[in-house]
Amino acid sequence: MQMGVRRSSLVAPLQLMDPAALLQALQWRYAVKVFDAERTIPAETWAALEEVLVLSPSSYGLQPWKFLVLTTPELRAELRPVSWDQSQVTDCSHLVVFLRQRKVSEGHLQRLLAHTAGVREILAESLSGYGELMRKDLIHGPRSQMIATWASNQVYIALGNLLTSAALLGVDTCPIEGFSPADYDRILGLEDTLYQSTVVCACGYRSAEDRYATLAKVRYHNHELIEHR
Amino acid sequence: MQMGVRRSSLVAPLQLMDPAALLQALQWRYAVKVFDAERTIPAETWAALEEVLVLSPSSYGLQPWKFLVLTTPELRAELRPVSWDQSQVTDCSHLVVFLRQRKVSEGHLQRLLAHTAGVREILAESLSGYGELMRKDLIHGPRSQMIATWASNQVYIALGNLLTSAALLGVDTCPIEGFSPADYDRILGLEDTLYQSTVVCACGYRSAEDRYATLAKVRYHNHELIEHR
Repeated sequence: MQMGVRRSSLVAPLQLMDPAALLQALQWRYAVKVFDAERTIPAETWAALEEVLVLSPSSYGLQPWKFLVLTTPELRAELRPVSWDQSQVTDCSHLVVFLRQRKVSEGHLQRLLAHTAGVREILAESLSGYGELMRKDLIHGPRSQMIATWASNQVYIALGNLLTSAALLGVDTCPIEGFSPADYDRILGLEDTLYQSTVVCACGYRSAEDRYATLAKVRYHNHELIEHR
Repeated sequence: MQMGVRRSSLVAPLQLMDPAALLQALQWRYAVKVFDAERTIPAETWAALEEVLVLSPSSYGLQPWKFLVLTTPELRAELRPVSWDQSQVTDCSHLVVFLRQRKVSEGHLQRLLAHTAGVREILAESLSGYGELMRKDLIHGPRSQMIATWASNQVYIALGNLLTSAALLGVDTCPIEGFSPADYDRILGLEDTLYQSTVVCACGYRSAEDRYATLAKVRYHNHELIEHR
């Protein structure tokens, strides 16, 4: 898998997916309550899901996030009591902790601009308008007052991307908000860093014992959720 | 397309997707700057994307959202000046405004419990533990103090799901945070309602003129974004 430059122009013509197959995967997906603790996601499949995370869209392309992938049993056992004792934390194959940046500084904009210039092989100066747009919004604008919310929103785009992508690859997930971010930050040593725990996603395979797997999916009717104007 | 009950147990065996094809779609995706104003998403494809939105996961399955699908040119022309004058607002095929609930009340929990009992053909009383869990968290717990952030996060899961799903169907998108939510609420008549504008997504087809389509995608390296423990 190519990990460096991701050039749209080099992408081969898109293979369209059958809409019915997409909807079937989204129907198949549910928030797993009981994982099969014996099953591990194959390395190649997991590598693809990491690439999915990296390719997640974010506002201005700023990627104000990090993804911790936890497989060490002892660490996950330590996190479980501060995760409402949910078994998914210890029994899934890969536990992802989504981190968001606590703040966005001029240095972060410069880092993105320099990286963009490098990837696109252009002069950083040619990106000054882009830099100014971000600066006016995130450093000096109204959004500077709500960076925690803004960065958290971006992280949830990545979560939504992962949940859908995993289902398409036949990997089960359980998004987890029921945990103590402060305890996670302490246990993961994030307290004095730029990053803080935001949301968690357990990935692996559903247990045959999970009675939730066969329950009817509950959604409001389309006409209650969607309005056309 | 079946719009009512969505029963996992009735789902046929999942058709796995080739990881390379998934990654290719995510590479192909970018935030469109110039849409082809002449092209409309076919009705069947759009119906699938509405179903994608409805199937989006949310915390507790509460679905604290609504999706406004705007196709009326006059309305979109009115929104464009309060969307940093971005052409995507008027030139895309379907403009989705993601709304979140301003608050979560006991009535919303009861509505979900009653609907769940109906869909699953069980007694509402059997769901009292589930109701209590939500109540302790969202009505009386710490999350009751940050419902706006919480509901906004849920909406961004739906956005992430839509962005990925649309790419798989060959539909282009542009997520838009550059707009005035207060002006959107006023123009869309949401001011005295439960719902407020949160984020916008333009959907349609890229123009052959969009020079952003062929720029290299910019992401930090995997080892900068992902950490294994």
